[in-house]
Amino acid sequence: MQQMKNDRFLRVLNNQPVDRTPLWIMRQAGRYLPEYLKTRAEAGDFMTLCSTPELACEVTLQPLRRYQLDAAIVFSDILTVPDAMGLGLHFEQGEGPVFARPVRTPEQVEQLATPDPETELRYVMDAIRLIRQELDGSVPLIGFAGSPWTVATYMVEGRGSKEYSHIKRLMHDGTPALHQLLDKITATTIAYLRAQIDAGAQALMVFDTWGGILSPANYRQYSLAYMQSIIDAIGSSHADTPVTLFTKNGGMWLGDIAATGCACVGVDWTIDLAEARTRVGEQTALQGNLDPGVLYGTEATIRHEVKQVLESYGNGQRHIFNLGHGIHQHIDPDNVQIMVEAVHELSPAFHQPATI
Amino acid sequence: MQQMKNDRFLRVLNNQPVDRTPLWIMRQAGRYLPEYLKTRAEAGDFMTLCSTPELACEVTLQPLRRYQLDAAIVFSDILTVPDAMGLGLHFEQGEGPVFARPVRTPEQVEQLATPDPETELRYVMDAIRLIRQELDGSVPLIGFAGSPWTVATYMVEGRGSKEYSHIKRLMHDGTPALHQLLDKITATTIAYLRAQIDAGAQALMVFDTWGGILSPANYRQYSLAYMQSIIDAIGSSHADTPVTLFTKNGGMWLGDIAATGCACVGVDWTIDLAEARTRVGEQTALQGNLDPGVLYGTEATIRHEVKQVLESYGNGQRHIFNLGHGIHQHIDPDNVQIMVEAVHELSPAFHQPATI
Repeated sequence: MQQMKNDRFLRVLNNQPVDRTPLWIMRQAGRYLPEYLKTRAEAGDFMTLCSTPELACEVTLQPLRRYQLDAAIVFSDILTVPDAMGLGLHFEQGEGPVFARPVRTPEQVEQLATPDPETELRYVMDAIRLIRQELDGSVPLIGFAGSPWTVATYMVEGRGSKEYSHIKRLMHDGTPALHQLLDKITATTIAYLRAQIDAGAQALMVFDTWGGILSPANYRQYSLAYMQSIIDAIGSSHADTPVTLFTKNGGMWLGDIAATGCACVGVDWTIDLAEARTRVGEQTALQGNLDPGVLYGTEATIRHEVKQVLESYGNGQRHIFNLGHGIHQHIDPDNVQIMVEAVHELSPAFHQPATI
Repeated sequence: MQQMKNDRFLRVLNNQPVDRTPLWIMRQAGRYLPEYLKTRAEAGDFMTLCSTPELACEVTLQPLRRYQLDAAIVFSDILTVPDAMGLGLHFEQGEGPVFARPVRTPEQVEQLATPDPETELRYVMDAIRLIRQELDGSVPLIGFAGSPWTVATYMVEGRGSKEYSHIKRLMHDGTPALHQLLDKITATTIAYLRAQIDAGAQALMVFDTWGGILSPANYRQYSLAYMQSIIDAIGSSHADTPVTLFTKNGGMWLGDIAATGCACVGVDWTIDLAEARTRVGEQTALQGNLDPGVLYGTEATIRHEVKQVLESYGNGQRHIFNLGHGIHQHIDPDNVQIMVEAVHELSPAFHQPATI
C-alpha cells in the first residue's frame, strides 16, 4: 500500500495513536463553495458533474485546496445506484432528486434489474482512479454508498417525502416485497463498494439517512440487517478496508450499530459523544458530531462548540471530527476555516500520552 | 368537578387503575376524515375553521362520533399563538404555514408584542367552552400549545424548514436574543394554557415538534428549560391539571423530560416503550407510540403492531395508547377503526389485578 503523507484518518480507524484528531466534513465538496458552483455551472447539471470523472475529481479536490482536511471523499451521490438500476434519476429545481419510475409494487420489485457496477457505474471507478492519482498520497480517499434502506426509501417514494407513505405501505402490506427490494439493493451495493475499493477507495462510508424514521424493531429488520450484510461481505473480501456506518437520528441504536463489526460509527449532534462512546465501546471509532448549524455562528461560538465536541469525546485515539450531518448550502466558507483551525489547535491536548 | 362518563384517560394521568388502556389519536380531527374535509371546504380556509368556535367544536367532535376514543382535543393549531403575537399567519397551498413577518433580529425580538390570550385568543376559549358543553361529560377535553422552542422555530424561520438556518444563526450569534424570544413566547404560552384550563380544558399537552433537532446541551437550554417553566407555572396555579410533554425525536432525553414533574411523557415510535418506561420511571405516565405509517397496512399487520406496542409497555396502569406522531392525511378511516378495536380487545389483559 502506498505510503500516505497524512494517514491520521486511517490510523484512527485502525486504532493507532495520532498527534491530533483528524477531520473531514460531510458534503465537503458542495454548494457552499464558490468554486464548486462555478464548476457545476460549467457542467450544466448535477448528474454531468457526477458522471464525468474529470469534473468529479475537480470538485472532490476543491475543499482540500482551501482547508487542511485529513480525508477526501469521492464526489458522487447515493442515488447513482438506483439510477443504474433503471429508475431514471433527475433533479428538479427546488425539489431535489426525482425518479421517473419509482418502485411501488411487488411486481415492480420483481422486474427490477441488478446492474453490474463495474460497467454501469464505471464513471465512479474512473473518478476514484483519477482522484487517487491527483491526491498522490496526500490524504486517503473515502468511497461510499447509501444504506439499502435509505436507497429503498428514495426508490419507493420517488422523491423527497415527509411521511414515507409509499414505503410504509410496502412494509406493512403483508408481502415480502420490501425485503426482496432490499436484497437486490444490498447485492448491488456490495458489488459497488467492492469495485470502489478495487479502484482505490481506502475507506468506506455507508449513509443511512432515513434509518431514524423506523421503530427499533423495524430498524433492525429493514435497515441494520442489510448494513450487517454489507459489513460481512466487505469483511470477507476486503478485510483491510474500514467501513463507517452512519444512521441519522440513530443515537439510541449506536450499540447495535457498533455490534455489526464496523470500524467506525458516525454520530449526529443529538447525542453527546461521551454517551456515544459508552454505547459503542472502545473497539469502535466515532465520527462526528458538530451541529452543522453552529457554522452560522460567530468565531467565538464556533470555537466554543468545537471545544465542546472534543471535550465530550475526551482523551483517546478513536475520534474523527466531523459535522453531525452534511454542511449546509449557505455557510460562509470562512467559518469552515475557523472550525478547521479550532480542531487543529485544540485537539492535540486530547492525544497526549498518559503521564507516568 | 363534573363526573366523567369515561374517565380512563384522566385516571391513567392520575395513577389510578383502569379496565383497559385509554387511547386518543394525535390530529384525530383532520384531513383523513371525509366529514372534516367537508366542514373545512364549507369554512373556506383553515384559519376560519380554527377561529370559529362552532366549526372548531364540530370538527373536534367528528372523530368521537366514528371511534370510541377516550379523549377529545380542541381543534386548533400551535401557530395561533405567534399569530396573536402579530406575525401574520397564513397557509400557502402545498407549502404549509407561512408567517408574513418572521422574527430574525434582536430588534425584532425586542419589538414583539405579548398578547393577552384571554382577549386575543378568545376564540379558542369559546371553542373549549362549547366543546365541553357538547361533550356533556362523555370524555375529557385536552387543551394544548406548542413548546416555546418549537413555536420559536416557526416564528424565526417563517415557514417550514429543513436546515433551520435562521434560528441556528440567532442561537449562535452571541446575543441573548433567542432567550428573550423564548421568554416572551413562554409567558404568552403560560397565560394561554391557564386560560384554556379556566375555560374547561381538563388536561394539557405541549407539543415540542422540533426539540429533536438540537444537541443535548442546546435541548436542555433552549427547549426543556422553557417547558420546565410551563410545568412549574401550571403546577403553581392549576396543580390538578395534568400536563403531557412530547418532544418528537426526544427518545434519548425521556428521563430529563420526566424530571420536569410533568404527569405524562409523549413518545414517538423510535424507542420501545419498555425502554421508555425504564427511563421515565413509574411516577410518570407514557403516551404513544404506534408508527403512524402502520395504518397504511393490512388488518393483520395493524393488529400485530398494536399488540407489539401494548406488550412493549407491558402490565401497568400508566400507559395511554396513541400514535407516535400525528395521523397522516391519506389514511383510510376504516384502518383507524381496526386500530381502535385492537386496543379495546387486546389491552384489558395488561390491566389484570395481580393474582394473590
